[in-house]
Amino acid sequence: MRTLKSTPLTDGYHMPAEFGPHHQSWMLWPERTDIWPHGGKPAQTVFAEIASAIAQFEAVTVGVSSRQYQNARARLPPSVRVVEVSYNGCWIRDTGPVFISNDRGHVRGVDWEFNAWGGLKEGLYFPWDLDNLIAQKILDLENIDRYAGPLIMEGGGINVDGEGTLLTTESCILNPNRNADIDISTAEQTFSDFLGVKKIIWLKRGLYLDETGGHIDNLCSFVRPGVVLLTWTTDSSDPQYEISQEAYELLASTTDAHGKPLKIIKIQQPQPIYIEQTDSASVDSIPGTVPRIVGARLPASYINFYFVNGGLLVPIFRDAADSGALRAISDAVPDKKIVPINTKALLFGGGNIHCNVLQQPLAKN
Amino acid sequence: MRTLKSTPLTDGYHMPAEFGPHHQSWMLWPERTDIWPHGGKPAQTVFAEIASAIAQFEAVTVGVSSRQYQNARARLPPSVRVVEVSYNGCWIRDTGPVFISNDRGHVRGVDWEFNAWGGLKEGLYFPWDLDNLIAQKILDLENIDRYAGPLIMEGGGINVDGEGTLLTTESCILNPNRNADIDISTAEQTFSDFLGVKKIIWLKRGLYLDETGGHIDNLCSFVRPGVVLLTWTTDSSDPQYEISQEAYELLASTTDAHGKPLKIIKIQQPQPIYIEQTDSASVDSIPGTVPRIVGARLPASYINFYFVNGGLLVPIFRDAADSGALRAISDAVPDKKIVPINTKALLFGGGNIHCNVLQQPLAKN
Repeated sequence: MRTLKSTPLTDGYHMPAEFGPHHQSWMLWPERTDIWPHGGKPAQTVFAEIASAIAQFEAVTVGVSSRQYQNARARLPPSVRVVEVSYNGCWIRDTGPVFISNDRGHVRGVDWEFNAWGGLKEGLYFPWDLDNLIAQKILDLENIDRYAGPLIMEGGGINVDGEGTLLTTESCILNPNRNADIDISTAEQTFSDFLGVKKIIWLKRGLYLDETGGHIDNLCSFVRPGVVLLTWTTDSSDPQYEISQEAYELLASTTDAHGKPLKIIKIQQPQPIYIEQTDSASVDSIPGTVPRIVGARLPASYINFYFVNGGLLVPIFRDAADSGALRAISDAVPDKKIVPINTKALLFGGGNIHCNVLQQPLAKN
Repeated sequence: MRTLKSTPLTDGYHMPAEFGPHHQSWMLWPERTDIWPHGGKPAQTVFAEIASAIAQFEAVTVGVSSRQYQNARARLPPSVRVVEVSYNGCWIRDTGPVFISNDRGHVRGVDWEFNAWGGLKEGLYFPWDLDNLIAQKILDLENIDRYAGPLIMEGGGINVDGEGTLLTTESCILNPNRNADIDISTAEQTFSDFLGVKKIIWLKRGLYLDETGGHIDNLCSFVRPGVVLLTWTTDSSDPQYEISQEAYELLASTTDAHGKPLKIIKIQQPQPIYIEQTDSASVDSIPGTVPRIVGARLPASYINFYFVNGGLLVPIFRDAADSGALRAISDAVPDKKIVPINTKALLFGGGNIHCNVLQQPLAKN
């Protein structure tokens, strides 16, 4: 693995869309007992279900700590590759590399700085030293050359159509707890240099109560060039109402990198889901980790779906809104097999399927 | 990675010779300060030199602990792949899988039990739980199917010609500290079932003072079918004299799997090398690890060489015997480029190049 001093843009690389062809998917096994209820076992069950579902469509590698290697190996099907790696948290979407490719199908990776979504003051846990090495270790393991991205940023904070358009939120990228000294034009230049995008669409903020500061991947996502899905509520008393309205207006008033307006499909959110006593009481209390308080609302969204080759894994919550959301999403991506997965147990950790899986695009090299 | 319940023999697999074509080489980064002098830094320097030398001929992957990942990554050239893995000791020859292949070029691996060369009473350190997972983790990482080998055994304890002949020592395989309940015929059946060999040549014991109980790979090795190199001394006062004589007589009186006699090439050993005060004093004193005592003789042998694609890495010691050994080895393998490496710093750990590198044969699957 070489670390290159040039930029992806000058080398002819750009970030392909998640709905493009994958070489494989990556996950990290959840095990923190100060984040996950009940010793992490419900989360591990859902992770195993997700990995098994992905394995029906494409290769999957699950990274796991030395402590949990044998357990993860036993709980995952033989077709899933399990590799040892150390990490602080399991959110590989945010800690893994952003893979980029060129016109000849060669793949490289961008390794951004990571500070646990806000650093010492506003980050979600301490330390995050191992998380900040995950991207490099994955690229090393895969023999893929690396660029060091010059922003503190997480993969869940950006979404691309693969044709030059990037969606993101000001509340993450421009947050002083990530990148205190940059302005919007510096950020745009960096996205251009390292992801090969031409048009950046800035939304103000993410899903209500999203702990990351408001990642785009719980709010809004491209499903193909020109079409975005947006989490929605018609309940004007819900704090999410104003956020979705604001996002809709921004999306409706802009164009993509081709200069075309976007088609916006609204996906009605589930009913609010709250932390229960039995879950809260089963989490280790560790100073430095954001506590999980009874009655706190969890950031649930159907938008945290994940594309695989020929399919789309969609989070559901055993909620009355599930069927409507699945129908609307299915209509939006008629060429993909929809795989609903009950991910209520993942909400507790602050993310969902998309936060916990990372695509490695297909390479021809 | 599947774990198969059949045997390699019934599935048509056998162990290819090390001098056959490789897919890559594997190493593990040394770091134990209770085994290596001076914080392991001299050993790391030699390991980096070996990995760099191999990289001139074929791909190399170096496994490294989480603690040492960044240091190993910085000290190894970019062409060397570095992957995180946890282990107790760095002797991957002994803890890694024995790779096997079939006539169609498919590769699988045998994962033997490992007990640190002798278990609780006579083993070299405690614990060895992580070492016993190394073979499985390598096979998992490489997506290679696995057999669980039913012996306590180390890869350095066997040597094959790839055409049905296996060399080994009674002092390791039949040692009650490894396999207390087996006789020679059970061991031979297991070698046949799991390595696809037809003729087992049993030497009595290994190199003088070899801590493993006497691995074959410090004493004697095939360099092609029909030809073995044997460490030798003409000094009848050296305890090695009798061991080499005994091995010679056994080798000279047997035949290989083809029924042909062996050509035995004697390689004069270096002068005795002893543990020095500065080295001994710099090693951490940890109960359970064999101590490194000033004045103890180290097991030095030119036979602990390692084949790479088109080359042969040969340990040297800045000894008067170096040039003679290199000439004799070069004459024995005229088609290989000889790469001498000063490995005096490795002797302290009890092994040499061959003990610390493992070949993964070329696969066509």
